[in-house]
Amino acid sequence: MALVECVANFSEGRRPDVIQALVTGIEQTEGVVVLDVHSDADHHRTVITFAGEPAPVVEAAYTAIASASRLIDLDEHHGEHPRIGAADVVPFVPLEGVTLADCAELARQLGERVGRELAIPVYLYEAAATRPDRVNLADVRRGEYEGLKTAIAVDPDRAPDYGPARLGKAGAVAIGARPPLIAYNVYLNTDNVEIARQIALSVRHSGGGLAHVKALGMLVKGRAQVSMNLTDYTRTPLPRVMELIRSEATRYGVAVQSSELVGLIPEAALLEAAKWYLQLDNFDGDQLLEARLRSRLK
Amino acid sequence: MALVECVANFSEGRRPDVIQALVTGIEQTEGVVVLDVHSDADHHRTVITFAGEPAPVVEAAYTAIASASRLIDLDEHHGEHPRIGAADVVPFVPLEGVTLADCAELARQLGERVGRELAIPVYLYEAAATRPDRVNLADVRRGEYEGLKTAIAVDPDRAPDYGPARLGKAGAVAIGARPPLIAYNVYLNTDNVEIARQIALSVRHSGGGLAHVKALGMLVKGRAQVSMNLTDYTRTPLPRVMELIRSEATRYGVAVQSSELVGLIPEAALLEAAKWYLQLDNFDGDQLLEARLRSRLK
Repeated sequence: MALVECVANFSEGRRPDVIQALVTGIEQTEGVVVLDVHSDADHHRTVITFAGEPAPVVEAAYTAIASASRLIDLDEHHGEHPRIGAADVVPFVPLEGVTLADCAELARQLGERVGRELAIPVYLYEAAATRPDRVNLADVRRGEYEGLKTAIAVDPDRAPDYGPARLGKAGAVAIGARPPLIAYNVYLNTDNVEIARQIALSVRHSGGGLAHVKALGMLVKGRAQVSMNLTDYTRTPLPRVMELIRSEATRYGVAVQSSELVGLIPEAALLEAAKWYLQLDNFDGDQLLEARLRSRLK
Repeated sequence: MALVECVANFSEGRRPDVIQALVTGIEQTEGVVVLDVHSDADHHRTVITFAGEPAPVVEAAYTAIASASRLIDLDEHHGEHPRIGAADVVPFVPLEGVTLADCAELARQLGERVGRELAIPVYLYEAAATRPDRVNLADVRRGEYEGLKTAIAVDPDRAPDYGPARLGKAGAVAIGARPPLIAYNVYLNTDNVEIARQIALSVRHSGGGLAHVKALGMLVKGRAQVSMNLTDYTRTPLPRVMELIRSEATRYGVAVQSSELVGLIPEAALLEAAKWYLQLDNFDGDQLLEARLRSRLK
């Protein structure tokens, strides 16, 4: 069974009827399961996570982009979160039996159809990007809806990968492929947020730290917290991140008190962590009793 | 879905037709899946691991005990492994949605039926034991088939829990309930087997070490190995065992080189290990992406 996840971001976090219409459209696609819906009124944004076989997931994503373009008017949209479109960001994530390259191909298929049938400009990003300056979502979203409105028509570097080089009220959409993202927070046994900030700076890629790690220091529940996004746990695994934080914490005379995962995590990320710490060099996923049982029960 | 595993041990490891007959009888029980078959000619013994919902698993175990009692003659059986019966040991192991107490109840149900319909003496052991001197399998099997033949008739302490107090050629059977067992080996970066023996002695319960740990030191592939059975990973988790071995290894100036799991392991044992090492205090199994997906796809 090939399983793909789609984490679609829409520029609507306040009108329940619009959010529900988007969720319902996805849910009613045969073979697609909605895993999570997260709306934020301040950001004026909703993230819908759904999964299934590749073809139905692409179909559901198309339906949702079409609905969003009818229901959301970017000229009326003001929130804290940067955005370029009604359906703003639509990444495909490989879960089981598919590669990141397969997901990039799904992004191209969807992008071509959205550009042609909905006349919405499409930018391919991350693993689906067609040029290096579109790998980072932040670069694609530069200037947001308002800025892109002018730039798309006059700057050849902002010409979309698919669709017309002009923005309607639905804006543009970034469609891409990326590995599963892990939101991971580490609490220190101190309320000194400055230490968390220093550690975040040391650990994150942009501060000279680990690849595929974004980190901020903050104060949460009275504890200094290193708040992270791990954008490719297959290359930068959890134990490497944790042990570097432990080592940096020691340098400031503090220790790790606990950690937490925000939202969902691929099982493989935790199994790899166990394998690393236990030095289980030749561990084979086939040794998992439940996996063996499920494959035999099929 | 309630899932129970049965790890049935039979006193036959040499005649392929007999082994196949036992496996086939189990496989043909609707709703039961055979996970593993391991025969050993020297031990003259076969272990068949199967699983499914409780009722069919009990039915398959009954069928296999009945077949074994027809096909195996203990008077003709001589192997290295201690045994009291044709079907020798039949433990039920909780996998999912059932407790150890539920499994003890299954052991009693099966034992009552085996005693009544097959006229085979049944001893309940471990979590199903009716008396403290029957918790340990070694005590139940004391004197083996040959010794029990006399003792069962004259010693009230050896009277079976079910069935007649006399042995036929099929002998007796120990039926019980136990947590999943993990076979776990740790390799050291030395070929000095004496160090592995010392560490095994320190780590195992009988040597003043950890509860639910059996350990031996041996030389495997030119490396000193601490070879273990963890008989209750829910009470004595993998990280506690590993970290104690690391600490003892340091005391002898050596280090852990790698570790290995023999056979199957419950997923929960590795997830708990990841949770321990990463200090994921509030981790919730519901955060596993695949588990969420499977539950929604149902």
